[in-house]
Parts: sequence; C-alpha cells; structure tokens
Amino acid sequence: MRVITLLTDFGLEDGYVAAMKGVVAAIAPEARLVDITHLVRPQDIASGRFRLLTVAPYFPPGTIHLAVVDPGVGTARRAVAIRSASGSYFVGPDNGLLLGALETDRPAAAVELSEPRFWRTSTPSATFHGRDVFAPVAGHLARGVDLGALGPTIAPETLVRLGLAPSRTLADGVDGAVQAVDRFGNLISNVPGSLLAGRGAWSASVGARTVEGHRTYGDVPVGEVLALVGSHGFVEIAVHRGDARSALTANVGDPVRIRWEGATTPAAHPGS
Amino acid sequence: MRVITLLTDFGLEDGYVAAMKGVVAAIAPEARLVDITHLVRPQDIASGRFRLLTVAPYFPPGTIHLAVVDPGVGTARRAVAIRSASGSYFVGPDNGLLLGALETDRPAAAVELSEPRFWRTSTPSATFHGRDVFAPVAGHLARGVDLGALGPTIAPETLVRLGLAPSRTLADGVDGAVQAVDRFGNLISNVPGSLLAGRGAWSASVGARTVEGHRTYGDVPVGEVLALVGSHGFVEIAVHRGDARSALTANVGDPVRIRWEGATTPAAHPGS
Amino acid sequence: MRVITLLTDFGLEDGYVAAMKGVVAAIAPEARLVDITHLVRPQDIASGRFRLLTVAPYFPPGTIHLAVVDPGVGTARRAVAIRSASGSYFVGPDNGLLLGALETDRPAAAVELSEPRFWRTSTPSATFHGRDVFAPVAGHLARGVDLGALGPTIAPETLVRLGLAPSRTLADGVDGAVQAVDRFGNLISNVPGSLLAGRGAWSASVGARTVEGHRTYGDVPVGEVLALVGSHGFVEIAVHRGDARSALTANVGDPVRIRWEGATTPAAHPGS
Repeated sequence: MRVITLLTDFGLEDGYVAAMKGVVAAIAPEARLVDITHLVRPQDIASGRFRLLTVAPYFPPGTIHLAVVDPGVGTARRAVAIRSASGSYFVGPDNGLLLGALETDRPAAAVELSEPRFWRTSTPSATFHGRDVFAPVAGHLARGVDLGALGPTIAPETLVRLGLAPSRTLADGVDGAVQAVDRFGNLISNVPGSLLAGRGAWSASVGARTVEGHRTYGDVPVGEVLALVGSHGFVEIAVHRGDARSALTANVGDPVRIRWEGATTPAAHPGS
Repeated sequence: MRVITLLTDFGLEDGYVAAMKGVVAAIAPEARLVDITHLVRPQDIASGRFRLLTVAPYFPPGTIHLAVVDPGVGTARRAVAIRSASGSYFVGPDNGLLLGALETDRPAAAVELSEPRFWRTSTPSATFHGRDVFAPVAGHLARGVDLGALGPTIAPETLVRLGLAPSRTLADGVDGAVQAVDRFGNLISNVPGSLLAGRGAWSASVGARTVEGHRTYGDVPVGEVLALVGSHGFVEIAVHRGDARSALTANVGDPVRIRWEGATTPAAHPGS
Repeated sequence: MRVITLLTDFGLEDGYVAAMKGVVAAIAPEARLVDITHLVRPQDIASGRFRLLTVAPYFPPGTIHLAVVDPGVGTARRAVAIRSASGSYFVGPDNGLLLGALETDRPAAAVELSEPRFWRTSTPSATFHGRDVFAPVAGHLARGVDLGALGPTIAPETLVRLGLAPSRTLADGVDGAVQAVDRFGNLISNVPGSLLAGRGAWSASVGARTVEGHRTYGDVPVGEVLALVGSHGFVEIAVHRGDARSALTANVGDPVRIRWEGATTPAAHPGS
C-alpha cells in the first residue's frame, strides 16, 4: 500500500497527469496516488523544488515522490531515482528539482534510469518522460522492484543541485539565498525560521537592501518591504500587498543575509 | 476502508492540501481521500459551509468530512469533531463551517479537540491547524479511535452557527435567509426548492426588492432580477448574466421571504 | 480493485464532481477514482472527446471511464454504457463524447441505461445525470454488475459520433478533419503523426490555406501558420504564439488534407 505523490508543471486542463496515473495504475494497481500540485509555473524548477521540499516531510516513510518539471527532457540530462536515508524515494529528472527535499533526509542511494524494461516503451517520447519513464519506474518501485535494478548506481554528490548557497549559521546571523519566488513575488530564502527563535530583533538583506524582521505583513504599511518567517517555515522578503521580486529586482540564487540586531537595539515587535 | 473528504480554501498551487494528505496517509494509510474543493474563496466560511452541505449527503455513512476554512486559527475558537445521527464525522473549526451539513443529519455527539496525543505535534503551528490538528484527528477517526477519546464532550447546541434564520414554513410562504453567495454573485437562500412543489406561482423578496419565481435564467431578459430553484436545490435570487449581490446590495444572513401568489394571480410560466 | 476515471466540464470550484465521487464510494467503496480533467470548456463535447481518447489507452484493461459533457441532459439523448474489445468500459451520454476513445479499441457491446434500479433514484434530476445515473452505473460496473443488466443492448453502429470524417490514407497523403481546438486555438486533426514517419517533407491544408509541416513551433517566426505533430500525437495546425482558429476561421469538423511533398522537393527540416 505505497503512496506515490505527483508534482508537475502540466496543469489541470490537459490529460498529461492522468496519462501518468494510468501508467502507474497498470503497473501498481494498489498504489495510492496523491497530487502535490500540477500548477508549478511551466519549467520553473526552483518553484517545483521548493514545493516538494515543503511537503515531502509530511508523508510516511516509503512514499515515492514522482516529480516532473523537466525543461531539459530530450537532452542529455539524466533521469534518476533516489532513496533517502529514511526510506522514501524520489523519481524525476536530475536537474535540481528533487534535491531540495533531500537536504535533511539525505540521499542514501541513487541510480540513473537506464533500464528500458522498467519503462513504458524502450523508445520513450522525446517530450514526455513523465509518462514513458518516470511514471512506470515509480510504479515498479511501488511493486517492490529494487532501486539497483533500475540502472547503474551514481554517487549522490554528482546529482545536480540548483546553484544555491546552503544556509550557513554565523556568529552574528545566518547567510543563505533566495530559493524560490512565489506567485505574489515574495522572495523565499533557504534560511529556516527556526534559527531565529530566541534571537530578538533581526534584519534581512537582499542585494543592497536591508529590511527589518517582522511577525506579519500587517506590521508595516502597504507598499513597504519587510522580512518575516512565512507559513512555509523559511525567512521571506516581501512587499506588503506588493511584488518584492520586481521592487528589489532580485531572483532565485541571490544571497540573503540575516543579522541579529545588537542587544542595544530593542526588538521592534515582541513576536519577531 | 473509510472515506475522508477534504474541503479547504487553500487553493491548488501550494502544497498545503498535500501536507494534510501526507499526515493522514502516515496515520491511516488505508483511508480513501476525496477532494470536495480547495477553491473556496479565502476565509469565506459561508461558501465553504454551503459547499459542504450540498455534497456531504451523497457520501456513505461513516465518511469523515475534514473541512478547514479557518480565519480564526490561532485565536480561542474551538477545534471540534462531531458525529452525526447517521454515523458520519465532521472535523474542523467551530465557526459555522460544519453545521450546515448537520441541519438534517443532526449532530449526535461532539467533542472539543484538546488531546495533543492525537495531533501531529503538541505545539501546533499558529496558522495551520489543518495539518497539525484536523488532519491527524481525521486519520485517527479513520483508524477507529473513539470520538470521546479526542477531548471533552460538548453540547451540540453550543456549536457555533452562522447567524442564519433557519427556513420556516408559514401559511402564505416560507421565510429564510441568504446562506451563501456564489462566484457569479447569485444569492443562494436556505429555502429548499422542494417546499415550492405544487404551489403554483411564487415571489421572493430580499431587502426592499420582490421578484417573481421562474424556471430558468432564460425566462427573463438579460440584466433582469429573478428568483429560481438552482441546481443545488435551493431558491436563489439572481440577475440574468449579472451580479445580484451588487445589484441588490445584499449579503449572507439577509432575510429572504418566499410568498405564494394568490390563486387569482395566474402563474406567469408553466414550469414555475 | 477497479479504476474509475472521471472527465467532466463541471470545474473545480463547486461540489458536482465530489457528489459523483460520493455516489460511487457509497456503491463501490473499493474502486480507485482518478480524475482526467474537470476543466473541459463547458459543453464542448469535441474537446472532452479528444481529452478522453488521448488518455484512455494508458489505463489498464477493465478501467471504467465515466465522462460527462452533456449539453443534452434532460432531452431525449440516450444514456449509454459501452464495453470495448479490450475489456474497458465507457459510461456517459450518447453524444459523441465517448466514441473517439473507441476508434482503435472498438466497442464490443453497448447498452442504453434504462434500469432505474442501478441509478441513485428512479426520478433523476433533469440537469445532473452525472450524479443520478452515470456515477451509480459506474459504481455498479465496478462491483461486477453485468453490462447487459443495465438496459437493452444497442448496436454500436447506432452510437452517435461527432460528424468527423475518419482519417483516410491515400497514395499521396492522408485526409482527415479537425477533431478539437485546444485553449490556444490550435486546430488538432485526427491524423496520427505516426502516418508521417519516413515520408519526408509534407504539407497540411485547412480550408484554402496550405502550410508546411515542421518539427516545432520555433521553426517558424512568431505569427506564422505551421503544421506539426503535437505532443498528443496528432497533426495540428497552429500559429506560432497565435490563434489558428481565428486566423484560419476554421473549426471542429473542417477537412484537413496532408500531402507528401514530391521526392524532388527536399525536406525543409531534417526532423519533419
């Protein structure tokens, strides 16, 4: 009774997701299919990566995460399956999409998908590996096929990561990077809000701009830039009812610096 | 093999719904998850309540309805689980969302959710009880945990209702109220269309405006106000290709008066 | 453990689809429900037909496809269930919606749904056969009820087809018709791209317009008309970043003529 989650940028109007589900159902009729989202902005690997990493931890061990945001389909980018330390699986293109979810629950083993007997056809479509390669592989994993049977082992450290500086704790704060931009233009960093607990007042910088940390959007006037811990658990830089990506001309990968404000600076907001 | 339905205002782009499903799957892997909708207008309790009451009766007894439209999350509003007379369950915030579905299939027992051992964590997020409280409780109910184990019993009559006059049959008609406004601005009353069967011509009043009952929108010119029994089974006041909420400056809770037209008034339309 | 797919034009905001799922769950709790899409343009039978035919082949034999795009609900149009040669089932209105998926996997038997004991109620809603007739019938099929019990046998050749000329291979090309228009205005023919393999250069005509076959949209300037094999596997006529339906004033049913270009005409594009 395995759970297979699906995350794609295929939308809900066409039948692409359903084709993938049909392929899974034909191989592993007992698998439970759960949609994460299919409304990732087309080809936005960073957004898909972020969505997957925020959701995957809530699924039971052994869950198979099938994720396809794949602008490089048909090129030489690798197709991979990864088993995590906790025993979950991640199947998709090797383009950085999967690795965000594997930063805490680290990769234990990874293979390149090169065995056509676990595909829908030995000559997969040049544009739809979701249906022809990734979905059947997820189905076979759900049925108990060994990861090692799917193709040659690859070293987890060779898996493609987005070019993001991992967040790094310093004496006077935390350094990180913008890891995704949501549909409102909020800049979501990879700095976990949990690192800010008990630190008092703090500020965040992106590019040349430094703003104060707050508890909620409503703590600043409409149009003003602020930093806060979003409901996703990460520090985000936002404009109250505005678009921080445009206002700060920032984007995925840009460095984010969090700094504790000195004990001499009183915390502006009790909850911050 | 319990069915758990999900109704929220979380949308389909983010992973909030999937996080809830992951939490359920970790507790009750055998439960069947069925989405009602996640496109309730944000924080619109009346719309969510209406959607739930129109759909819940079609599910088998024993179904667990998990509903989260929860503007008061983090405040003192109660979190509750309710068992209906027919043996279905309703889990969510005590803000009126659940009670519409329990007007015919009455509450048999209700508890306040106060036992953290049935939550995901004893310190739930201030903003996401859907994931941390309601989803795990639904999972435990699916596994057979007794309602009474989840927290202290509360009297069903203390459950919060939206401030709606229940519909009331009179000698010359039915009095009710607007219970929801749909995305077209149609004012949906809580007067069941079944009460109109065999009554001949009828009129409906909201505020100072009285309009005739018709069979379909097409019975009146574009832009004209009319009343009809909608496909949801309730009397609604609408503007043909227009927005009745704006046109009549009416809203949820406003009284609606249905009146039978005297035998001396011929029915304007055979089907009305 | 039957799979039941659902395809409708009911959208995702209301509870119509969930009501159908509740009805199925009450009859066949063990059935697996998989959405194809519920965002077919309202009452667009051709689009629904096309979506179903592109997806159905990926599901395992025995799958029950429940499809409702039903502008004729409440009129004399027949309600039908069909078993295909491969053992899959199709349940819905007899208006052409189902037959596209049955062009290769031919109908083996068909019945008119006239036995109210397999409906939700013997007096179904005039507007919602999806809930009252089709969903319960799909549930009973999933439980193993014989097709023949659902109503009198009808000859498959009497089933309503959209007025589409089937594609026909000629010495110098293939004749077909526009079978659907997608949301971008692309004209999707019923000519399978597989018929073009190894043929060299080709052209496509709709109405008075003849355009060259290409490999991808990017092969022509923005605004130019082209033909290509879409990811759905059929020849389509498109405008690069434009709307071919408007540009060519063409629509579903219009003839499409594919012609091989003479050996004396070198292929303009290696991949075409």
